[in-house]
Amino acid sequence: MPSWAYGNSGTRFRVFTQPGGPRNPFEKVSDAAEVHKYTGLANSIALHIPWDKVDSFAELKAHAEGLGLWLGTINSNTFQDEAYMLGSLAHSDPKVRQKAIDHHFECIDIMGETGSKDLKIWLADGTNYPGQDSLRKRQDYLGQSLAKIYERIGQDQRLVLEYKFFEPAFYHTDVPDWGTSLVQTLALGDRALVCLDTGHHAPNTNIEFIVMQLLRLGKLGSFDFNSRFYADDDLIVGAADPFQLFRIMYEVIQGGGLDEGSPVAFMLDQAHNVEAKIPAQIRSVLNVQEMTARALLVDNESLELAQMRGDIMAANDIFMDAFQTDVREELSQWRASRGLPADPMGAFRASGYAEKVSLDRVGGVQASWGA
Amino acid sequence: MPSWAYGNSGTRFRVFTQPGGPRNPFEKVSDAAEVHKYTGLANSIALHIPWDKVDSFAELKAHAEGLGLWLGTINSNTFQDEAYMLGSLAHSDPKVRQKAIDHHFECIDIMGETGSKDLKIWLADGTNYPGQDSLRKRQDYLGQSLAKIYERIGQDQRLVLEYKFFEPAFYHTDVPDWGTSLVQTLALGDRALVCLDTGHHAPNTNIEFIVMQLLRLGKLGSFDFNSRFYADDDLIVGAADPFQLFRIMYEVIQGGGLDEGSPVAFMLDQAHNVEAKIPAQIRSVLNVQEMTARALLVDNESLELAQMRGDIMAANDIFMDAFQTDVREELSQWRASRGLPADPMGAFRASGYAEKVSLDRVGGVQASWGA
Amino acid sequence: MPSWAYGNSGTRFRVFTQPGGPRNPFEKVSDAAEVHKYTGLANSIALHIPWDKVDSFAELKAHAEGLGLWLGTINSNTFQDEAYMLGSLAHSDPKVRQKAIDHHFECIDIMGETGSKDLKIWLADGTNYPGQDSLRKRQDYLGQSLAKIYERIGQDQRLVLEYKFFEPAFYHTDVPDWGTSLVQTLALGDRALVCLDTGHHAPNTNIEFIVMQLLRLGKLGSFDFNSRFYADDDLIVGAADPFQLFRIMYEVIQGGGLDEGSPVAFMLDQAHNVEAKIPAQIRSVLNVQEMTARALLVDNESLELAQMRGDIMAANDIFMDAFQTDVREELSQWRASRGLPADPMGAFRASGYAEKVSLDRVGGVQASWGA
Amino acid sequence: MPSWAYGNSGTRFRVFTQPGGPRNPFEKVSDAAEVHKYTGLANSIALHIPWDKVDSFAELKAHAEGLGLWLGTINSNTFQDEAYMLGSLAHSDPKVRQKAIDHHFECIDIMGETGSKDLKIWLADGTNYPGQDSLRKRQDYLGQSLAKIYERIGQDQRLVLEYKFFEPAFYHTDVPDWGTSLVQTLALGDRALVCLDTGHHAPNTNIEFIVMQLLRLGKLGSFDFNSRFYADDDLIVGAADPFQLFRIMYEVIQGGGLDEGSPVAFMLDQAHNVEAKIPAQIRSVLNVQEMTARALLVDNESLELAQMRGDIMAANDIFMDAFQTDVREELSQWRASRGLPADPMGAFRASGYAEKVSLDRVGGVQASWGA
Repeated sequence: MPSWAYGNSGTRFRVFTQPGGPRNPFEKVSDAAEVHKYTGLANSIALHIPWDKVDSFAELKAHAEGLGLWLGTINSNTFQDEAYMLGSLAHSDPKVRQKAIDHHFECIDIMGETGSKDLKIWLADGTNYPGQDSLRKRQDYLGQSLAKIYERIGQDQRLVLEYKFFEPAFYHTDVPDWGTSLVQTLALGDRALVCLDTGHHAPNTNIEFIVMQLLRLGKLGSFDFNSRFYADDDLIVGAADPFQLFRIMYEVIQGGGLDEGSPVAFMLDQAHNVEAKIPAQIRSVLNVQEMTARALLVDNESLELAQMRGDIMAANDIFMDAFQTDVREELSQWRASRGLPADPMGAFRASGYAEKVSLDRVGGVQASWGA
Repeated sequence: MPSWAYGNSGTRFRVFTQPGGPRNPFEKVSDAAEVHKYTGLANSIALHIPWDKVDSFAELKAHAEGLGLWLGTINSNTFQDEAYMLGSLAHSDPKVRQKAIDHHFECIDIMGETGSKDLKIWLADGTNYPGQDSLRKRQDYLGQSLAKIYERIGQDQRLVLEYKFFEPAFYHTDVPDWGTSLVQTLALGDRALVCLDTGHHAPNTNIEFIVMQLLRLGKLGSFDFNSRFYADDDLIVGAADPFQLFRIMYEVIQGGGLDEGSPVAFMLDQAHNVEAKIPAQIRSVLNVQEMTARALLVDNESLELAQMRGDIMAANDIFMDAFQTDVREELSQWRASRGLPADPMGAFRASGYAEKVSLDRVGGVQASWGA
Repeated sequence: MPSWAYGNSGTRFRVFTQPGGPRNPFEKVSDAAEVHKYTGLANSIALHIPWDKVDSFAELKAHAEGLGLWLGTINSNTFQDEAYMLGSLAHSDPKVRQKAIDHHFECIDIMGETGSKDLKIWLADGTNYPGQDSLRKRQDYLGQSLAKIYERIGQDQRLVLEYKFFEPAFYHTDVPDWGTSLVQTLALGDRALVCLDTGHHAPNTNIEFIVMQLLRLGKLGSFDFNSRFYADDDLIVGAADPFQLFRIMYEVIQGGGLDEGSPVAFMLDQAHNVEAKIPAQIRSVLNVQEMTARALLVDNESLELAQMRGDIMAANDIFMDAFQTDVREELSQWRASRGLPADPMGAFRASGYAEKVSLDRVGGVQASWGA
Repeated sequence: MPSWAYGNSGTRFRVFTQPGGPRNPFEKVSDAAEVHKYTGLANSIALHIPWDKVDSFAELKAHAEGLGLWLGTINSNTFQDEAYMLGSLAHSDPKVRQKAIDHHFECIDIMGETGSKDLKIWLADGTNYPGQDSLRKRQDYLGQSLAKIYERIGQDQRLVLEYKFFEPAFYHTDVPDWGTSLVQTLALGDRALVCLDTGHHAPNTNIEFIVMQLLRLGKLGSFDFNSRFYADDDLIVGAADPFQLFRIMYEVIQGGGLDEGSPVAFMLDQAHNVEAKIPAQIRSVLNVQEMTARALLVDNESLELAQMRGDIMAANDIFMDAFQTDVREELSQWRASRGLPADPMGAFRASGYAEKVSLDRVGGVQASWGA
């Protein structure tokens, strides 16, 4: 879970606030713990620096562990300081690049304190107008900056580089696609991997193909799960196209991404602009669980036989049979068997937590995505 | 010109500030006057309510007129008040709808003071999740709300309804396409027209076809010009695809949109997130002028003959010949003949205006898009 | 069901043949009857003229009725004659337009013989290059041509005009969107309606919104069902995005499209390029049935309450609960209760029909889409 | 130039014929020679096997050389034999893969006869339905097949692997993007490179970024030039978006793609479905020349200075100044200085060649794209 899912987020038009919003990283962690409490599936929370900077990460870690969570991936931020208006690690000015590199060094230091394994880098770098800057030079600068950061991470740590098709840059983005993320991480070394955000592709892109390819190459480091109808809408994962999530999880399973010791980190990265945030995170976690369960139902033996004889209708029927199966009752029983509520959404609603924090969290400023 | 182009704008990730940014509507008007001063083409500024509310619109009007401008279209805003989180004119709650209707009544009152002819309505209304609200009921509510507003506008005033494909709503938008804007304005009456924003379409949409169709139906009320590579990027018009702007202006000309007495209002609607704002507006105005000049060069007589004999290569060549022609020298001469600078961009840079306002405008808060 | 789904179809790269393909309209009807036999849901077959021209439509009708089918919509074809290379009803040459009008008169005559109610017009008309022809003149020609055809149809017959975003024209299409189809049919009269093909939209288009709007306006005449990942892929309906089909059927139900006496005709329009055709049609029919059944499960009373209190998560959960429900067992029972096989796909496979026609249909040329 | 541009091509709906179409490879070469004759820019013709198989390639080569042309890239074809319905090099059946490999061996043999340097592989391989086949296995099969082909090419020959977003496969394509083509060619070796077809990307893709990246990596082997408004429309290059072609040529120049000894092969790959074919090829060649000339006009020194000081408007103005410049007069003079006609289109029209071949080429069957 991302810490920022619990703070306020919005569009360029407006960030709406919601009652009971967390005012600091400790309250974000508390909210996140609710999600794990009812689902038993989300015991890690990723931090975003500087949004989640605290005086003592040891204290934050203890707070998290007390609630059954551990502190996960550290996400850097190179898009909000005024210096980064025209880029950060790929900026044409070496001073700005150094500032951005130093920020990552700080993130690595924090990783030491939190025990985080992954440094995740998503860059807003790009340009809005043709001619604004040199595509080629920026790509080279990016490679040099990443190399300096990579040098600093520990032997048991990883650098995960996210790509994004567009936004906030509108002409070119310095890491626009999985190919670019791949060649940049290949140049770094084995501990540099690709992060796939399900909302960061061109329209109509077959995402599960990329999942397959990156797993095949041993370069899939992590997921940022969400869903979208248009661009990077950052909706609840599985909300826009449940069948796509099913296909993605199927490829994850086939490629060993759920195996013991798999290098793939599964994270949500969503913006709950109008919906209640904790329920939205619970729903997200359940959606991934349900589609994973369905994907595990595929009768691969029969499927392979149908594929080998070129029987398209039979193969598709076997595949769809798993997707069409309602697994919710079985998952309720799985939860009950572990002392979890059969209905996590209902249990959270009944818990009174939302009402309680609305009353308790008075004074102070709510944490906001982008602040 | 839109008043908001001179204030700061940005993406959901960050709104960057620029030195010398205007702090109030008067300073916005002053900045806009610079654009007209060097181009001779942009003598009107549209206002956005409540962003541009002032104690005395008479005073603002006098300020504008003193600088050679008049106050144009009034743009309403129903996307920033907390009440509008789930919609405004199409909201399922009648109280919210009434609040939004009342806001438009206030806009109409302001139109009386400014002498504006057009009330332009762009709605952020929509939903993010399937099932969130009833598509059908919202469409009916929208029709009812618009009818109440339409009733209030004067006989020499118009209601112009803008459509947008998506954003800030990510599942459905209540006025997503020209068809919806058309059927809603047809239901209102003759003084209700469609506003076409060049950035508000699905990928690959043939925009000039829509221009042609709306002119054919007598329902094209106004343009919001900008350009984009991806979604509603709001870049400088003509920056992303100059040929598209040429084709649009060609259809405008063919459909009588530039004729004396044409009902079409031409406006810019852009977000200068990273580039200097006054130069960006000058460039925008020049781009429209250049592509209009090129479109006027099409040899329609020869074109029609080639079309009639089905000679595709000849017809395309005639059409492209106009587009490929560099008209800048002729336009410089046109400017010189009117006492305008041959090089508006250079003249503005040389004027020292940007440096002057950077020094003068100290204290106070810069105006921002969305504030 | 479309007669052409049983003949061979393909892409511009290749039309592959399949064993046992029908060689004439009678054999197509026989194949179609298999689909109805096992599903009980598809008792009508649409014809395509001239592909399905026979010496005696009375004989074809009798053949169909003997198999429990009736002859449905007549589809015209104005894209294969050499004369139509640059258009048909919108062609700039009046002789070509007249030829295309005459073809529709012939179709209307055939409707008299077959007892068909609907004349469906899909036009390939458009241009490939800017300047190739006048967008405006073509739109006017189209209106004039349609008016002549509309005049000829009977009081109990309808003209249904389909729109398509692009292909086979690659710059502009003369009926590219629902708005154009709407204004053209509004100009004709009450018996002119819009046909919505689910594959004929721009990327990311919210199709259920259009369904809602057309039903609201009383102008939705028919569906061409199929699905796609990219463009007009013409895959099995529900194969690419089952949730989208669910949402479409939900709006159909809400808008009265399944009510007794509804004017909406439901048709498949798919191209089974590589998969077995009869199983593909059975699957298509079942997919529509399953998603309709799920859509009928939505608890609208609870949904409305959640919507009214602005509880997005609750509303979405209610909506998704219906979609996530596996209805296949209930539908099997429904079939069993009507003397139909519990498993239509299995029953067809077991019937030996495919093997039989492969042996029987020797000699002659297989019918092909586009021939 | 591609030999197939001179034969008939079309969409899945119809292949229209044109008078005077070539009936065999010799006549295609003759037509191609006309393009070079008037432009002086296109002295090579690519062949497509088996479409261009002749009894004696020595004779075809002599015919070409007599007309001032040489025989260029050999393009394989693995999408028209019935065996390839479900794939070729990535097919799950080893017999089909071997057949496809053997076909490439034949192509390599032909390269020996024609003196061609490049074997270009575009694959139609893919699936239409989820579950139809294993994405992962196919990727591995593809790698194995390519390795066998790569082994066979000579030390002075290259294997160039093209990617394509979709079509004719509609769910997944085995080489859908530059990333996949890159990893497959990296696995082969230095003489395996990527082919970039400008029409083979997702909507809104920044193609010049890919050009930059592949040149940076030393893996850009060749271009297939064309343009499109929607999907793989295969229109005349530069016809849909001249500014995009300008930006692409700018990156080619910056990346050394036009330098002496550059490994980049520049080819057209278009389908002239409705327009006259020889004029369309002449126009294509001129469009590339004009946009290259404009791109060469960019004042890179000033541009770099503007970029370094972060002056977006100045940088964009410098870039656009080159694009807005009409270079046609200078190019006419360049042609005149080489004894070429000032107006190639006019000169070809005046030559009577089109009329002559219409009369001469009677009897026989016109060559067709896909036949």
